[in-house]
Amino acid sequence: MSTILKGIAASHGIAIGKAYRLVEPDLSVQKTSISNPSEEIARFHSSVEEAKSELQVIRDNAARDLGEDKAAIFDAHILVLGDPELLSSIEDKMKTDLVNAEFALKETTDMFITMFEQMDNEYMKERAADIKDVTKRVLAHLLGVKIPNPGTIAEEVIIVAEDLTPSDTAQLNKEFVQGFTTDIGGRTSHSAIMARSMEIPAVVGSNNATEAIQNGDLIIVDGVNGDVHINPTPEVVNEYKQEAKNIEIQKAEWALLKNEPTFTKDGKQVELAANIGTPQDVEGVLHNGGEAVGLYRTEFLYMEREQLPTEDEQFEAYKQVLESMDGKAVVVRTLDIGGDKHLPYLQLPEEMNPFLGLRAIRLCFEEQEVFRTQLRALLRASMFGNLKIMFPMIATLDEFRSAKAILLEEREKLQNEGINVAEDIEIGIMVEIPSTAVLADQFAKEVDFFSIGTNDLIQYTMAADRMNERVSYLYQPYNPAILRLVKMVIDAAHKEGKWAGMCGEMAGDEIAIPLLLGLGLDEFSMSASSILRARSQIKQLDYDQMGLMAEEALQKSTTEEVMELVNKVTKM
Amino acid sequence: MSTILKGIAASHGIAIGKAYRLVEPDLSVQKTSISNPSEEIARFHSSVEEAKSELQVIRDNAARDLGEDKAAIFDAHILVLGDPELLSSIEDKMKTDLVNAEFALKETTDMFITMFEQMDNEYMKERAADIKDVTKRVLAHLLGVKIPNPGTIAEEVIIVAEDLTPSDTAQLNKEFVQGFTTDIGGRTSHSAIMARSMEIPAVVGSNNATEAIQNGDLIIVDGVNGDVHINPTPEVVNEYKQEAKNIEIQKAEWALLKNEPTFTKDGKQVELAANIGTPQDVEGVLHNGGEAVGLYRTEFLYMEREQLPTEDEQFEAYKQVLESMDGKAVVVRTLDIGGDKHLPYLQLPEEMNPFLGLRAIRLCFEEQEVFRTQLRALLRASMFGNLKIMFPMIATLDEFRSAKAILLEEREKLQNEGINVAEDIEIGIMVEIPSTAVLADQFAKEVDFFSIGTNDLIQYTMAADRMNERVSYLYQPYNPAILRLVKMVIDAAHKEGKWAGMCGEMAGDEIAIPLLLGLGLDEFSMSASSILRARSQIKQLDYDQMGLMAEEALQKSTTEEVMELVNKVTKM
Repeated sequence: MSTILKGIAASHGIAIGKAYRLVEPDLSVQKTSISNPSEEIARFHSSVEEAKSELQVIRDNAARDLGEDKAAIFDAHILVLGDPELLSSIEDKMKTDLVNAEFALKETTDMFITMFEQMDNEYMKERAADIKDVTKRVLAHLLGVKIPNPGTIAEEVIIVAEDLTPSDTAQLNKEFVQGFTTDIGGRTSHSAIMARSMEIPAVVGSNNATEAIQNGDLIIVDGVNGDVHINPTPEVVNEYKQEAKNIEIQKAEWALLKNEPTFTKDGKQVELAANIGTPQDVEGVLHNGGEAVGLYRTEFLYMEREQLPTEDEQFEAYKQVLESMDGKAVVVRTLDIGGDKHLPYLQLPEEMNPFLGLRAIRLCFEEQEVFRTQLRALLRASMFGNLKIMFPMIATLDEFRSAKAILLEEREKLQNEGINVAEDIEIGIMVEIPSTAVLADQFAKEVDFFSIGTNDLIQYTMAADRMNERVSYLYQPYNPAILRLVKMVIDAAHKEGKWAGMCGEMAGDEIAIPLLLGLGLDEFSMSASSILRARSQIKQLDYDQMGLMAEEALQKSTTEEVMELVNKVTKM
Repeated sequence: MSTILKGIAASHGIAIGKAYRLVEPDLSVQKTSISNPSEEIARFHSSVEEAKSELQVIRDNAARDLGEDKAAIFDAHILVLGDPELLSSIEDKMKTDLVNAEFALKETTDMFITMFEQMDNEYMKERAADIKDVTKRVLAHLLGVKIPNPGTIAEEVIIVAEDLTPSDTAQLNKEFVQGFTTDIGGRTSHSAIMARSMEIPAVVGSNNATEAIQNGDLIIVDGVNGDVHINPTPEVVNEYKQEAKNIEIQKAEWALLKNEPTFTKDGKQVELAANIGTPQDVEGVLHNGGEAVGLYRTEFLYMEREQLPTEDEQFEAYKQVLESMDGKAVVVRTLDIGGDKHLPYLQLPEEMNPFLGLRAIRLCFEEQEVFRTQLRALLRASMFGNLKIMFPMIATLDEFRSAKAILLEEREKLQNEGINVAEDIEIGIMVEIPSTAVLADQFAKEVDFFSIGTNDLIQYTMAADRMNERVSYLYQPYNPAILRLVKMVIDAAHKEGKWAGMCGEMAGDEIAIPLLLGLGLDEFSMSASSILRARSQIKQLDYDQMGLMAEEALQKSTTEEVMELVNKVTKM
């Protein structure tokens, strides 16, 4: 019988294919007494051998698909499995304590891991990580459970996971991933953003996808309506194939707009930009007709690493993005770490409410060397394109002034060292904290531009964690209070002759676009894959009419009333 | 040598006295092997006897000071120490396993506690709590460490603690507590609010008070400047005695204003109300000339208990407050649980950002029976005074409409049952979420009044957890963004002929009062102990001048500029 799960449509499109479960199996270990250690040791050895040959396959695939340097990590894992000291310690434990192989393995490797991790030595810490990984693999064989190996996927699949972390998605061979669905997450979670950047359909927050879906099930991920069909009937599959074809046709029509500027029906021009996370994303921006990069999230440079990126590494990344964009504007957001984003090598305190804690610019003031290194890399890269710098989580004018002063200090230092720096770098801020929106007229006198970060602005304005499903009913982009704050920001910018953009999810939203246009937004920055749809939509809208509609929306009292208004006006 | 600790002045006044450390000692237990169990059993017995005679003293003191019913809990504890089954289980463990008394005690009682706690029986759960308490006491004797017994304090002391929980303060004999100082907390933490309600000086957040101060040290708690002096010189003591005397004189002057209404120099009248937590607090309100209760925090009725309060228990409490206030207004806030406040008997989910989670009215919608019971108790009590009902954490008009609909449903049910309910109960909301302040004009059409909750409004508007010291620099009551939101709320209320009050800490703050007066605030609700000082301050202010000053403050760009302005204008 076919089943339908309801989730959140996180990335547009239809995927039909075989399910691949990316789920951590239960590897918990029971201690049991044994009477025959040599039998247990034999069982242990055969699991080690199985793990070894599995790793050899993974290693070879990685070398073929990703290059020898990426494959080296698996060589290290294979070496661990041949370490005589480690193996004999585990065997001794079985013999002496008369305990089962699982327990002996776990106890022994835990001891080594703790020992290595405590050493103040990067090399030994990496060894601890290797042992951890290898232990999991051998344990899985001992326990007879299967560990998913995303790196070995070699056919078209749809990923089914509880959630997808940056590390999971880094391992995926994107060529074979047609779509994904996750138990948790919302439109602004990492997995949703990743799906849109990969331009594959996704449904997130479906609650029990990992429970309801088995490996190899035929599933349909409907990223338009947020449905996941499990083992659908042939009729349903056919309907969806037709639907997928229609989407392809529509995409082809949109593609004709790729090199056009963005005008409304009555001739008002706006800019459609893209949010990116890595230099590799620039290709998608250009392919989708992005007129600028409206948000370059530099966090990705710092994640999935063992230490901070050097100034030169950062310089190369920024330069690459600026050069690839070939004179088009690139708005780079300085490091936004903390909150739900952590770096393993930067010790941050546990906070009771991390979203209201030491994150982004607040953390950069405390970790000034990290901040200054990034600013130097940006300034050096500024010669290679049209760079704009933007500070995240600014709550007070004092914070903006301090951040700008640090930037100017680094610029002066570089110039004294004889290094060229562009003279005309615009310096702006994210508006994602209510205080800054309310005081935008004061900020507008000092900043060069605003970029409204709606994901955070909405969560703070409504006092509702956007990752918490129990209060998700309060995440209301069209709430008149949000629209009023957006208007304050746009009006404040225009009064001082500055521009105002938006780089939250809202900027690419079909209901929000008519409202934002009417409120006078200058720049819309969204997932690259949304740009052509947005351009097509804006071409059909009348700017003056949207302005009147937006005025009316500001006087509504609830989200529902605003949605009704937009539907009524734009469906005319 | 004398030392001075810097903290936050949380409750006004000077206390000079002997330190009493209310610090949980380390009662962690090591397992050691023993060779002579009968020696160990003897050691155990003598600790049990010591604990027994200690409990007898505590019991007698409690009976004398608090009454026989409060003393009964200690009778129960003494009974546990005579339970033959428990004692012999512990002795058996020492004999059979050859382990030390501490370990045998801990292991055995842990087992009993787990067993009792898992039973679905209130009586057995209470026994588990008794055993826990008694175990701690005997363990302390075995380990030779001292447990503080706040219930036995019989001389004037100053409490030194890491933090004070509601349960700690409930045990304190308030007659002997002259002041306190804590390592953590801010002006809005429980310990600070408690100190102001007890009208004793307090300095919180001094970081290392419990480390730096020994039992019996002479200390001065300077609740004016936020200093704690440890073993000060006689000169310093004399200076402070003089200062304390001056404060007494000032208080005596303020006391003359007790029965006066609150007018500015130029004849503008405002209302000074008090925030309370329990019916017992009403005495302090009247004693300090409070004109109303502006915030009755009903959470305290639900805390320090094993189960929800019944409708009748609540009815009695509300009735008592309304009757004691004798026709003066009492604004009751419905249950505000969640966030940092939990109830042991109400299972709430762990949340990543509890301040942005399922709290207050959001939780009441999910736990509707709890909410409805409270509303029924309030409606029944409405016949006994001037009741106003206010909903906390309202973020959208839909929420207010739903809450009001539930209230009206319960009113109708009561009326159908033939129970009298006041016809004219005002229904209002806390304004503590930015969206509600921004949309106050729409809310004002439907609510009867606003009460601005600045503690939360500031933390959400600045996106900074008010309990997190690392971002405390962003907790800025005088930030122009906050003042603008406050103005939006006041103006919106007045436009619809409604009133606007404030019940956050800011309402009693000496720098904020001139600004709030200028912005047109109608009602200021604060700690009872601040009312006379505030009345005295307002008498000396000119309403028209404060209006002009407030207009100017709204155009400032930083907190510092606002503070300079207020200082300049009010010091003239």
